[in-house]
Amino acid sequence: MTRREEPQDPDRKESGDVPSPEGLAEGLARGDRRALARAITLVESGRAEHRRAAETLLDAVAERRAASTLRVAVSGAPGVGKSTFIEALGAHLVAQDRRPAVLTVDPSSRVSGGSILGDKTRMPELARNPGAFVRPSPTGNAYGGVARRTPEVIMLCEAAGFDPIVVETVGVGQSEAAVVSMVDMLVLLVLPGSGDELQAIKRGIMEQADLVLVNKADGALEDAAAATASEYASAAGLLPGRWRDWRLSVHTCSALTGCGIVGAWAEMQRFRTSLDAEIRANREEQALHWLWSEVEAGLGVALRESSELREARAHMEGAVRRGELAAPVAAARLLRRIFAR
Amino acid sequence: MTRREEPQDPDRKESGDVPSPEGLAEGLARGDRRALARAITLVESGRAEHRRAAETLLDAVAERRAASTLRVAVSGAPGVGKSTFIEALGAHLVAQDRRPAVLTVDPSSRVSGGSILGDKTRMPELARNPGAFVRPSPTGNAYGGVARRTPEVIMLCEAAGFDPIVVETVGVGQSEAAVVSMVDMLVLLVLPGSGDELQAIKRGIMEQADLVLVNKADGALEDAAAATASEYASAAGLLPGRWRDWRLSVHTCSALTGCGIVGAWAEMQRFRTSLDAEIRANREEQALHWLWSEVEAGLGVALRESSELREARAHMEGAVRRGELAAPVAAARLLRRIFAR
Repeated sequence: MTRREEPQDPDRKESGDVPSPEGLAEGLARGDRRALARAITLVESGRAEHRRAAETLLDAVAERRAASTLRVAVSGAPGVGKSTFIEALGAHLVAQDRRPAVLTVDPSSRVSGGSILGDKTRMPELARNPGAFVRPSPTGNAYGGVARRTPEVIMLCEAAGFDPIVVETVGVGQSEAAVVSMVDMLVLLVLPGSGDELQAIKRGIMEQADLVLVNKADGALEDAAAATASEYASAAGLLPGRWRDWRLSVHTCSALTGCGIVGAWAEMQRFRTSLDAEIRANREEQALHWLWSEVEAGLGVALRESSELREARAHMEGAVRRGELAAPVAAARLLRRIFAR
Repeated sequence: MTRREEPQDPDRKESGDVPSPEGLAEGLARGDRRALARAITLVESGRAEHRRAAETLLDAVAERRAASTLRVAVSGAPGVGKSTFIEALGAHLVAQDRRPAVLTVDPSSRVSGGSILGDKTRMPELARNPGAFVRPSPTGNAYGGVARRTPEVIMLCEAAGFDPIVVETVGVGQSEAAVVSMVDMLVLLVLPGSGDELQAIKRGIMEQADLVLVNKADGALEDAAAATASEYASAAGLLPGRWRDWRLSVHTCSALTGCGIVGAWAEMQRFRTSLDAEIRANREEQALHWLWSEVEAGLGVALRESSELREARAHMEGAVRRGELAAPVAAARLLRRIFAR
């Protein structure tokens, strides 16, 4: 295939710039990283013609994926060393002839549009490695810190033969619940000697975590890291756990020296292998949940765009805006109108 | 009105136990706290017949409310002293012949169902005060730390003549965005000398806040509180701000000694008075946003319950569960089915 025949970049503003889903699907089947990058840009596009092409593409790749992949989220507070950890893990995986894909979510804040992390490419080594694929994604407002299209991006990465899929997310509380609905496993990075107040914030996260890694276990912090790991291991005993056959596991590591990275990957493999049936069942539940959240999001859009319902809509909006009608009452009346047709 | 004539509690499991919306609306118009408690139980109920009665009630009270109320959220990390602060503020308000309503949201964690705060009644003085109204609400999973029906509960409290409406929410990151969509003003409580890591987490919250109070400014912490207030004031200068005519204001207070409580309330009043037109416009936008989120939530429920669409639904669910169809593709096909009827 020559460069000329490759699908076009959906970001290009020329006419007829919708990329060919068939061409992209072929590219993914060959494991082509460039086709993967373009496919992701396509599914992340908000334009209606891109969305239709994206649906054709997703339909083409849905059944082609391997069922034995591992989807793992890496979370933790800002400054805990997630990027450095993923770089070290990625280098280890590539050296083992694995093809990791890393999706880093850019947690833009809602008002200013700025990024907490400042820059988007924080994994320079891994991003350059031909055996790996690194992709930052915008979050928009949906799903607290995880992009709306992240499950679609995971599908595309798997269709291109990447495994494991690593989703990096900033741990600021509620985002973990969203990311857990998209992956098999949650790895939580923490710092040695984290304070009590942070612990309280982390409590909701701990219940979702499958593996806790106390990072920066090097130099002067090595002893503190071991002590923190013991504390987390004790706390883990009090948690109900998400799986029948897995107990929250706690280890130390140093993304800087590389110590503990091999062990961390071994734990992830043990998780994947020992929970195979549970992970498959969980993925089925996740897919159903995803279906209904897509239907709900799409229903709202379709309703807003329906010309038939325009008059009823304008009337309800005016009454709600003026405070004459409570929003839930107006919503119930609109719904009866749709489903009584 | 005798006790016998009062509407019945919707929690009662007897037959014909749907309370009369008309009776509840009359009770609210009289400022009856007991009718208010029952009205809230009604709108929070998940039963279909309660929902219909709730809609009638909301319709009856929608236009009766005063437009000049203040809806304020009080947020902050666990342990910052939100309950003690609200007790002190509430006592001050009642002494001024105001009638504050306090809605405390119980942030149950998703997996264990446990409560971070342990107990539900953490404002014993205010709860007993006949001039105030205190109500804990379950959160469920929706809206990250704020209950789905909180905007309806606010409507009911205002219909019963309460003002201000204080919504207490635990500040764990993403919940502020949800609560900000329901209130006029966000008051953020922080502790003296909070560390850098917490600051990073709070950055997204700071952008939403209208007033920051450094609590526990008493005894040995008084100087630290003043220093922390200076730091927040500097940080506030870097933020874009939500309002044209209001800059994020930072003060110290001590919920324990009562110092700074009068000043905090004065700031809230200054906010309400100087932003009157902006608050009215913001409430209109909030009502529209609320309408559409209710429509989206309701559409999903209606679709799941529609017998006509049952077959298409079962087919899509099976294909998605087996991985043959990507969820967004199945969702798009279902939507075309509904809107092509």
